[in-house]
Amino acid sequence: MGSTGIVYRHPLAQLTLDETNEARDVIVKLHSDAVVSFRIISLQEPAKADLVPLLELEHAGKLRSDSPRPPRLAKVHYDVIGGSKKPVYCEAVVNIEACKRISHETLPDDVHACLTTHEFGVFVEVCKASELFQATMKEFDLPEGFDVVIEPWPYGGLDTTDENRRYFQGLIFAVDERTKNPDSNFYAFPLPVIPIMDWSKREIIRIDRPATGGKGDALTGKTHAKGILDHCKPAEYVPELLPGGLRKDLKELNVVQPDGPSFSVNDDNLIEWQKWRFRVTFNSREGAVLHDLHYDGRSVLYRLAISEMTVPYADPRNPYHRKQAFDFGDGGLGHCTNNLELGCDCLGVIKYFDGVVVGPDGTGVKAPNVICLHEQDNGINWKHTNWRTGRAVVSRRRELVVQFIITLANYEYVFNFKLDQAGGIMVETRATGIVSVVNIDPDKTAPWGNVVGPGALAQNHQHIFCVRIDPAIDGHANTVVQQESLPLRMNPKTNPKGNFYEVLDTRIETSAGVDAAPHNNRVFKIQNLDKKNPISGKPVGYKIVPPPTQKLLADPESTQAKRATFAQHHLWVTKYKEDELYAAGRHTLQSRQESGGVTDAVARNENTLQSDIVVWSCFGLTHNPRVEDWPVMPVEIIQLPIVPSDFFTSNPALDVPSQRNQTSRLANGDGNGANGQCCNGNTAH
Amino acid sequence: MGSTGIVYRHPLAQLTLDETNEARDVIVKLHSDAVVSFRIISLQEPAKADLVPLLELEHAGKLRSDSPRPPRLAKVHYDVIGGSKKPVYCEAVVNIEACKRISHETLPDDVHACLTTHEFGVFVEVCKASELFQATMKEFDLPEGFDVVIEPWPYGGLDTTDENRRYFQGLIFAVDERTKNPDSNFYAFPLPVIPIMDWSKREIIRIDRPATGGKGDALTGKTHAKGILDHCKPAEYVPELLPGGLRKDLKELNVVQPDGPSFSVNDDNLIEWQKWRFRVTFNSREGAVLHDLHYDGRSVLYRLAISEMTVPYADPRNPYHRKQAFDFGDGGLGHCTNNLELGCDCLGVIKYFDGVVVGPDGTGVKAPNVICLHEQDNGINWKHTNWRTGRAVVSRRRELVVQFIITLANYEYVFNFKLDQAGGIMVETRATGIVSVVNIDPDKTAPWGNVVGPGALAQNHQHIFCVRIDPAIDGHANTVVQQESLPLRMNPKTNPKGNFYEVLDTRIETSAGVDAAPHNNRVFKIQNLDKKNPISGKPVGYKIVPPPTQKLLADPESTQAKRATFAQHHLWVTKYKEDELYAAGRHTLQSRQESGGVTDAVARNENTLQSDIVVWSCFGLTHNPRVEDWPVMPVEIIQLPIVPSDFFTSNPALDVPSQRNQTSRLANGDGNGANGQCCNGNTAH
Repeated sequence: MGSTGIVYRHPLAQLTLDETNEARDVIVKLHSDAVVSFRIISLQEPAKADLVPLLELEHAGKLRSDSPRPPRLAKVHYDVIGGSKKPVYCEAVVNIEACKRISHETLPDDVHACLTTHEFGVFVEVCKASELFQATMKEFDLPEGFDVVIEPWPYGGLDTTDENRRYFQGLIFAVDERTKNPDSNFYAFPLPVIPIMDWSKREIIRIDRPATGGKGDALTGKTHAKGILDHCKPAEYVPELLPGGLRKDLKELNVVQPDGPSFSVNDDNLIEWQKWRFRVTFNSREGAVLHDLHYDGRSVLYRLAISEMTVPYADPRNPYHRKQAFDFGDGGLGHCTNNLELGCDCLGVIKYFDGVVVGPDGTGVKAPNVICLHEQDNGINWKHTNWRTGRAVVSRRRELVVQFIITLANYEYVFNFKLDQAGGIMVETRATGIVSVVNIDPDKTAPWGNVVGPGALAQNHQHIFCVRIDPAIDGHANTVVQQESLPLRMNPKTNPKGNFYEVLDTRIETSAGVDAAPHNNRVFKIQNLDKKNPISGKPVGYKIVPPPTQKLLADPESTQAKRATFAQHHLWVTKYKEDELYAAGRHTLQSRQESGGVTDAVARNENTLQSDIVVWSCFGLTHNPRVEDWPVMPVEIIQLPIVPSDFFTSNPALDVPSQRNQTSRLANGDGNGANGQCCNGNTAH
Repeated sequence: MGSTGIVYRHPLAQLTLDETNEARDVIVKLHSDAVVSFRIISLQEPAKADLVPLLELEHAGKLRSDSPRPPRLAKVHYDVIGGSKKPVYCEAVVNIEACKRISHETLPDDVHACLTTHEFGVFVEVCKASELFQATMKEFDLPEGFDVVIEPWPYGGLDTTDENRRYFQGLIFAVDERTKNPDSNFYAFPLPVIPIMDWSKREIIRIDRPATGGKGDALTGKTHAKGILDHCKPAEYVPELLPGGLRKDLKELNVVQPDGPSFSVNDDNLIEWQKWRFRVTFNSREGAVLHDLHYDGRSVLYRLAISEMTVPYADPRNPYHRKQAFDFGDGGLGHCTNNLELGCDCLGVIKYFDGVVVGPDGTGVKAPNVICLHEQDNGINWKHTNWRTGRAVVSRRRELVVQFIITLANYEYVFNFKLDQAGGIMVETRATGIVSVVNIDPDKTAPWGNVVGPGALAQNHQHIFCVRIDPAIDGHANTVVQQESLPLRMNPKTNPKGNFYEVLDTRIETSAGVDAAPHNNRVFKIQNLDKKNPISGKPVGYKIVPPPTQKLLADPESTQAKRATFAQHHLWVTKYKEDELYAAGRHTLQSRQESGGVTDAVARNENTLQSDIVVWSCFGLTHNPRVEDWPVMPVEIIQLPIVPSDFFTSNPALDVPSQRNQTSRLANGDGNGANGQCCNGNTAH
């Protein structure tokens, strides 16, 4: 509270409901002659040039209530629907403190705003009411007691430019109502019907009819019987519907933190834990975002977020080439973020962060528990036993986890940012949920998927993620250096016995896309070439080991590939540009090619040597489903490590206590260990 | 207890002290005219042909006390030292029940038995007493209060065949005795002196003198000053010697299992947990070995163990090309295995397994707690939220961990076999401990390492592990199938829109070494081609995703490379051969080339199609040390997943309860969650 009575909220503090509504009001007033339909109202982060001076004051302990600071800003996405005029889609920035719109952009017709759940709702209603749809469904004999379920999906990339409208498509399933359980798994009963809605007309304009054949069958044409679901079988996952019930021999495992968590969080979402200090925000596009990460008072990253992901499907039959989600860009992620629950999504002592979402009227609504924060134990972090004395010193690896989870129709993704005590960061994605299936005729198999349940073909697909890393390694002038370990032939002068190998550093001096090469142990170091490690004499830095996963498989000439050129390299290095946050560009819905994404950024051919740079790490999962992925798949985990490399002057976790845990017990009996430090255990000498 | 009063111990049950001593007595009696010096007495597993019938009876529930069963066997490694005759090294198998040696092999002169800690002790004494060594050390002015420390190492690969003797070498350090702490870290004070002992003479025959220069200096020749440690600085890791003390803000995190563990263990080390059933044994060569792994009554693996690892160093200066440990083959691992401690090496409720080791007299000595078994929580295993109803079902991932840890001089390795509830197995290695350093002159750097502390150069090196997987996927006739996902150009017939990709299966029909290829999403499935998954119609199998790590870098013509040809491929498929367990061969100490290892097995060119096969997975870590790795390195983790792939008919973890954890708490206040199942949480719709 300043002397003026104004609460000085941090420019990175989460938007409140009041601030959200304030931003809404500013926009509504500017369009009093029209209807405004809101899509997103989110915190607009200040420009880096405006924010950095404030952060520097803050870290220097010199921030005062009257220090200059950037105003609180909101980004607002909305449609203006005005009488006879064609609706337009706008993106604006509102200065909340000044109650003023400070920037405004009316997007051209060929740009499509990300979709909202409101639109999905409209689609479902339009579809249900459609005579075309109803007539089509009469073609099938559904089993007694089954009802139709409409699953809205983004339309995917447009096939031609001349159909530049806003479309929706639906995947159609049937649900066994006889279960009397609203969570009976309808995905087990897929129907080969895909209604298409023209949004401007609110009308089902076409119904696509994918084939249901398999290997050897034509890619088009009807082969299915009228009783198309007769060979399908239930695949329930809710406990009360499992035919065999639940396993009964799993005993409780509790994480108990009697003294509370080791972290602290203030009202402006400043988090401090084990020498780490950072802020977290939530927005509808990226979910949880980490800002201004410092370790032990030294700057590491300016910003860290999941930038984009795309999920292209590989079934060659029309219209499945359009089955390609951009779950961040298309999605209106904010509405798909799970409200996490105590005791379910993590264990121990948990801090939850709420988000704010809006409906079409722009009124802010609290989205509770969209991010959770907790600590976990991840085994041994370091250990050494002196075999002479028998004394072991062992220190455990505690991690701080910032987690959010999204549900996108059938699928879910768990995103974890894990900080450790040795100055390392792990970005982890877990794919789970229900794999997308389509109907396949009895006794057939197909080269583009796997039969995971009777009549249910899970199509092969990929998930390509992009993590945006805005580094600030001891400052904002940073350089990415590729390092490889390369074999060297035996030679009398430098390698007389053939055991020497060369470690080769190559600076990335101009914006570029580069690839993982694990056979060369290729790693990328983000270094500050102006600061040398006093011990090793090498530039201080952090190391990224890009997961060497398969890149996008679709033909480079395909629409799938063109819309996601970010997926063509494992790592991109670009020069920082304000508001350039999204790997596949700001607007992905129905795109025909990536625009304003990372490939455009690289094409600027800018200097990236000791510059304000951004690093984009792309990795993925080629997911040819297993039967074990049905009906809900066990997590597939990918991890991106970002670890210090000659940034510190020794192991930063050396001062973590190696205290013996007093609550551990022997399996046979409850004998407790001795008191005191870990550990005086001997080796077996 | 059978009717005869004989206790029918399982052929895979751990050797007892009595059995160990029985085996010793049998050997001693056979050599009454000589001295027998024992190296190893371990369980000899029965031949597969003998064991399988018993296991089949066991799984069929038909095992009776009078069922035929293989006898209890011990493998004994020993030297016979007989008067005027040259000592010989022998390996024998003893039938413990019949008190009879049933096989016996006298190894040729050019084979060296793995070393023992007893030998290390002799080396240290001989070195201390050596006039040559003492004279050499006088060359240095050690700081006041420092004493010399001798660290025994295996000699490494012989440079020439004509020096075929048993050698030991020592790395020499100095310890600051003024700390009055026996655990002061002497590795911070390395000396460029490497004494070599001829074992047969018990004499230091030579002292190697590595250079201490850096970049631009010659690979040989003295550059160091007399006060060689004057620029070195302490690098302590024991808490009481840390200059800044310990961090004080880490709160307790306890794993509490009020109802005990979910596993059971019987006296013959049969472990049952969450539909898994297997046995664990411990031996001095491989550490923990898992046998006869079944999930839900179905056979998955016959045997799983770490087979070998090699650690070659890349410093080109003499004699560092000989710095190459085979930590399993050289090592006498049994004596290096940590005695794990409650509350230190894992949390929760823990079952420990003891091992048996022997000294030169062959008497069995209990090695307590060489393996531990515990459960851990590893986050979310599967989740789905039905966005229509808002109901989320989320199930956590409980893992069962079989852990052992070894200390090899400066370094430690943590090995974990993790079983999960979805039928998956993860083999995990963690490298920690103190990186090996050598002295470097002040203000120099070197291309073959990194200066991690003043005067302490950590040499670049690799760790290459090999995991031996003996599969039994629904039986012993199995086939490895390589699967790749490959791009396909757009074409009207099969790929009209360019989104289709091909999934190509290639059977490995003859023994072979193959490589990871993550750019092709190459995975290897171990399938039983005779059993089809009833849902997908594909052969039942388990999938291995070989970590695509860098292979051995040394020149193929170097001794380093020749001794470890197992490290030339990521995956080997061989035909099962009795007693063929070790990737680099039975005898690695001072080897000049791999012999009897996996490359020899492959060279037999045997049929591996629906055959009794063995799969060897090799992966590693190219470790160019960071300053952060000093003085004790945070763990570097590598994981090898072995997961079902069309083995089951649905997600095997579907029946894991999704019960809300009742002990989780909110960070601000102690409010508890609601009761009941996980979870009725909504998404933010």
